[in-house]
Amino acid sequence: MVTSTPSVAFDESAITSTVSSIRWLAAPTSRLWVEQAIAKPMQVLIDHAHCERKAAGSAVQLMFRYLCEPGLGEVLSPLAREELEHFEQVLDLLKSRGRYLEPLRSPGYGAALAKHVRRAEPDRMLDSFLVAGLIEARSHERMALLAEHSSEVALRALYGSLLQSEARHFGVYWVLCEQRYSRDVIVPRLEQLAEAEVDALRGELEHPDDVRMHSVGVDT
Amino acid sequence: MVTSTPSVAFDESAITSTVSSIRWLAAPTSRLWVEQAIAKPMQVLIDHAHCERKAAGSAVQLMFRYLCEPGLGEVLSPLAREELEHFEQVLDLLKSRGRYLEPLRSPGYGAALAKHVRRAEPDRMLDSFLVAGLIEARSHERMALLAEHSSEVALRALYGSLLQSEARHFGVYWVLCEQRYSRDVIVPRLEQLAEAEVDALRGELEHPDDVRMHSVGVDT
Repeated sequence: MVTSTPSVAFDESAITSTVSSIRWLAAPTSRLWVEQAIAKPMQVLIDHAHCERKAAGSAVQLMFRYLCEPGLGEVLSPLAREELEHFEQVLDLLKSRGRYLEPLRSPGYGAALAKHVRRAEPDRMLDSFLVAGLIEARSHERMALLAEHSSEVALRALYGSLLQSEARHFGVYWVLCEQRYSRDVIVPRLEQLAEAEVDALRGELEHPDDVRMHSVGVDT
Repeated sequence: MVTSTPSVAFDESAITSTVSSIRWLAAPTSRLWVEQAIAKPMQVLIDHAHCERKAAGSAVQLMFRYLCEPGLGEVLSPLAREELEHFEQVLDLLKSRGRYLEPLRSPGYGAALAKHVRRAEPDRMLDSFLVAGLIEARSHERMALLAEHSSEVALRALYGSLLQSEARHFGVYWVLCEQRYSRDVIVPRLEQLAEAEVDALRGELEHPDDVRMHSVGVDT
C-alpha cells in the first residue's frame, strides 16, 4: 500500500485536499541517508541544482511530447518556470561560495524509474505523470529533512523556502492524472510505481562517497 | 555584409550598446510576408506560441549541453523562463478565442539553420549561440512588423508587449559570444550565418496557404 512518510510534514494548505489525501511514497527515507547528506552539504547542493534543472527539463519534455493536449501547456509551463527559478536560487548560493555546477556521477534513480514507463498510450502519459510526481514527492520529502537537519542556517533556510512550491508540484501531476484517468486506474498504478521508486532507493551506496538527492536510502 | 533591417526599430535602451551596434540580419522581411501574415492572424499566432516554446526548449537544451560552463546557466535559465511566460501569454489569447495549440507543418527554417552548426567545439558553441541569436533577431523583426500592421488592436498590443524582451534575447546571445570568443572570430561567422538565415527564407511558399513566423519572405 502507498503510505505516507511519517517524517514529512506536508503543506496541506498548498495542495488540494484530493492530493493531500493521497500518499505517494511507499517508504520513508532512512536516517542513514540523512546523516550522509548532512555530512556532504555542498555535494548535495550541487546535485540539487541538477535536480531542479532536470525537473524543468522533464516538464518541458512532456509539454513537447503532448503539444496539443488541452490543459497541459498552461500547467507544465509555469511549473517548468518555477523549477528554473529554483535552479537559479541554488546556483546563486553555490556561486556565493565560490562553487558552480560540477559533473556528478548519476545515482541511476531516474533511469531506473524511466524503465517502468509503459510505451503505448494512454499508459505512457499516465506513467509519465506518476513517475514525475513520485520524483517530486521524494524530492519534497528529502528537502523537508534537509530543511530540518542541515547544520547550516543558510541551507535550512534555502531548503525550507523551496519546499512550499515542491509540495504543489506533485499535486500538479496528480491533478493532471485525475483530469484524464479514473481513480480505479490511477491508484493501483501509483502503488506499483511507488514500489518501483522504493526499489530504486534500496541497497547500499555503490560509491560510498557519493550522496545525492536521489541516492539509495529508504527504510524498508 | 550584415546590415540592419531598415523597417525595424531596435529597442536601443533594452540592449547593450555593443549589441545595438551589431546588426544581425542580412536582409529585411518582404512586404509579401507581412501581407500573408496579417491575412492569417490565427495561424501566425498558433505558430508563434510554438516558436516561444521552441525558443525556451533551445535555451534549456544549451544549458543541458554545456552544464558546467560558468556564466551560462544563470543567463539561459531566466531567458527560458521568459520565453515560457510568453508562450503562456500567447496560449491565453488563443484560448480566449476558443483555440489551442494545433500541429502545424514546419517551414523547415530551424532545420535549415541547424545544418550550419559545426560539430566540433569550440565552433559548435559559437554557432549555436549565433544561430539562436539570429532566430531571435528574425522573430523580433517580424513581431515588430506584426505589432505595426496587424489589423486587430489586441494582436498589435500582444506583439508590441512581447517585443521589448525579445530585443534583449538576441543581445543575450551576443554577450555570451563576446565573453568567449574574439570579435575577429565572431563577426565573420555571424556574417556567414546571417546569409544562411536569409537563404532559409528565400523562395516561395511551398504550400501557399501556410504562413509562419519563419516562413519564406525576405527582400533580396
